[in-house]
Amino acid sequence: MSPIQQDVDHSAEDKPASTSDGTMKAVRFHGKEDLRFEDIAEPQCGKGQIKIKPAWCGICGSDLHEYIGGPQICPTTPHPITGESVPVTFGHEFSGVIEEIGEGVSEKFKVGDRVCVQPIIYDGTCGACKEGLINCCYSNGFMGLSGWGGGLSEHVVAPEYAVFKLPDNVPLDVAALVEPLAVAWHAVNASPFKPSDSVLVLGGGPIGLSVVQTLKARGCRQIIVSEVSTMRKQYAKDFGAHVVLDPTEDDIVARCRELADGQGVNVTFDAAGVQSGLDQAILALRAHGTLVNIAIWEKRCTFHPSELMFREKSYLGVATYVQGDFQQVIDAISDGRLDMCQKMITKRIELDEVVEEGFKALIKDKDNQVKILVKGSGEI
Amino acid sequence: MSPIQQDVDHSAEDKPASTSDGTMKAVRFHGKEDLRFEDIAEPQCGKGQIKIKPAWCGICGSDLHEYIGGPQICPTTPHPITGESVPVTFGHEFSGVIEEIGEGVSEKFKVGDRVCVQPIIYDGTCGACKEGLINCCYSNGFMGLSGWGGGLSEHVVAPEYAVFKLPDNVPLDVAALVEPLAVAWHAVNASPFKPSDSVLVLGGGPIGLSVVQTLKARGCRQIIVSEVSTMRKQYAKDFGAHVVLDPTEDDIVARCRELADGQGVNVTFDAAGVQSGLDQAILALRAHGTLVNIAIWEKRCTFHPSELMFREKSYLGVATYVQGDFQQVIDAISDGRLDMCQKMITKRIELDEVVEEGFKALIKDKDNQVKILVKGSGEI
Ligand SMILES: [Zn+2]
Ligand SMILES: [Zn+2]
Repeated sequence: MSPIQQDVDHSAEDKPASTSDGTMKAVRFHGKEDLRFEDIAEPQCGKGQIKIKPAWCGICGSDLHEYIGGPQICPTTPHPITGESVPVTFGHEFSGVIEEIGEGVSEKFKVGDRVCVQPIIYDGTCGACKEGLINCCYSNGFMGLSGWGGGLSEHVVAPEYAVFKLPDNVPLDVAALVEPLAVAWHAVNASPFKPSDSVLVLGGGPIGLSVVQTLKARGCRQIIVSEVSTMRKQYAKDFGAHVVLDPTEDDIVARCRELADGQGVNVTFDAAGVQSGLDQAILALRAHGTLVNIAIWEKRCTFHPSELMFREKSYLGVATYVQGDFQQVIDAISDGRLDMCQKMITKRIELDEVVEEGFKALIKDKDNQVKILVKGSGEI
Repeated sequence: MSPIQQDVDHSAEDKPASTSDGTMKAVRFHGKEDLRFEDIAEPQCGKGQIKIKPAWCGICGSDLHEYIGGPQICPTTPHPITGESVPVTFGHEFSGVIEEIGEGVSEKFKVGDRVCVQPIIYDGTCGACKEGLINCCYSNGFMGLSGWGGGLSEHVVAPEYAVFKLPDNVPLDVAALVEPLAVAWHAVNASPFKPSDSVLVLGGGPIGLSVVQTLKARGCRQIIVSEVSTMRKQYAKDFGAHVVLDPTEDDIVARCRELADGQGVNVTFDAAGVQSGLDQAILALRAHGTLVNIAIWEKRCTFHPSELMFREKSYLGVATYVQGDFQQVIDAISDGRLDMCQKMITKRIELDEVVEEGFKALIKDKDNQVKILVKGSGEI
């Protein structure tokens, strides 16, 4: 099945409703610092699609980036796949309950099923997609950022391939964390990580902490975290870090070399995206070490190529996830390898509180929040 | 056998001779723009060592870097393995004829044998060496840069493991090119290159042209070179490039995408080391493409991590060569896969002409030279 919803008319979605009949509430991003809680047309469930009542939806760092300095990811001209541009409904980390099944959808899905959504949008036809690299699709986008609605609304329609059923023992709030965990899980998959490695994680935000949990689930011998915030340092320890360093107090390079066989770490995951961290991380790597970037940087970085060259180090960019990652994370939650996810939820708010209690609170209180979840109507 | 020449006294080497007895001529680097043709003590052949009369010795870009802006690679405090610091004898790309065999050396070596020297100096005991990454040795150095003499002298003593016998059909002048060819050969080995790939090579200097020849020898489907100099463009074509672009005239990114399946190249080898080339190279890569740096950069580079991240591209530093590369290059020259190497030699000079006709000529006339070879006393 082609991932493009070719036969479906999305034109009614994400437009202000003219009547109260068939409308719903949604949090929509209009532009920099312009996020509105408003009424829009309720989406219709088309062929090959599944209609979902969102249960829980996380607010992500990239949502915040868009709100503060965007639109950067959100399209300002029609997106090549969705055809939509701002305003778009926000929310790409969400779980929910199936309320309607479109024509032609597999019988394994039923109304009332508890699910989470893999929000990546890809064309399925480009050179990257043909090689299975849907995260690198030359036209890619995301539900909740590029159109097709999002989790911060009362109803959302997703193509069948994007919907993952939850095992009975995976709660809907934890299921809203599958997306950020899949980013970390994929980064570890895409890296040369082996369980016997020493690993440095830069940053103890939601993605950094997801990497720590993933590394623990994968049996990593030595997890070192570099973080400044007291609360996040404690989280890093709770989630499985063997050593937590503070770059304002510790010499990260010297400590990593000392801790890791006198040579330095094998892999660093950069979930911070700041120049001073990168400078330290390159020097903290041993020969043939790899720096994996999962951070969204505000600006360009610099380094001296010789610092990578003389010890044959590498810098690898990784992005989101490919088919397989979502299911692997759901399985790891269900079988207990990822056993502390729920602890990432530091605050729960209602849909009409998203701007004040979600975005503005995160900007003010970033160091004391990991993940804020927004409650939808699909919780059962 | 440990690669360190522990039992050998090198203290007599590389010191000005007090008498004419037991002295030799050598080109020694004293510091920035201070290269002297002078008399020093002739080295003695110790246990496990082979004494060689250099036949031909190339002048390398890194020699030139040291001369113009060094010492950077050459040690100013005693090198951890050689114990030497500047002044040091120059010349790490050389061939020669064996004149003396030290105690304990394998019987496969005989006086009169034609050889070339792998100049890398490593301790054999560090974490990198233990994994076979001698090029990443935490104490590494090079004959001709870090002590133990060099090819720009009348006699040189090398440890047995550094000496490679030449097949009868490999001439001594071509053998002086094995070192730069091994840098290129190793870079291709270390990269994810497959023969079906489209490859971009930035820069048509000695290393860029060595990469082109290596790619041709390895059956590369599409070799694209970006170069400005008219003479080097012609060399690139002669050596096997399918397409030669000029960054002052062509849109490198658009042309690479057009030439390479509409997506961009799989691998880029950066043998230029300039910011504008890097900017183009990152964009010219397809999803999951790799940029391999073999250039010595004068300064730091910059890029936006998002440019690597969203298509999961990587940046890989590679350095010199490991065990195996020298023999593979010698074999490829001997069996004809590398069949045009001799064409790289654009000028031949005498040892006493090195400063004026070698270094100063290269600085003035860089674009019209590929490799200048210096004649020694070992040519037969
Ligand atoms: Zn695609
Ligand atoms: Zn070593």
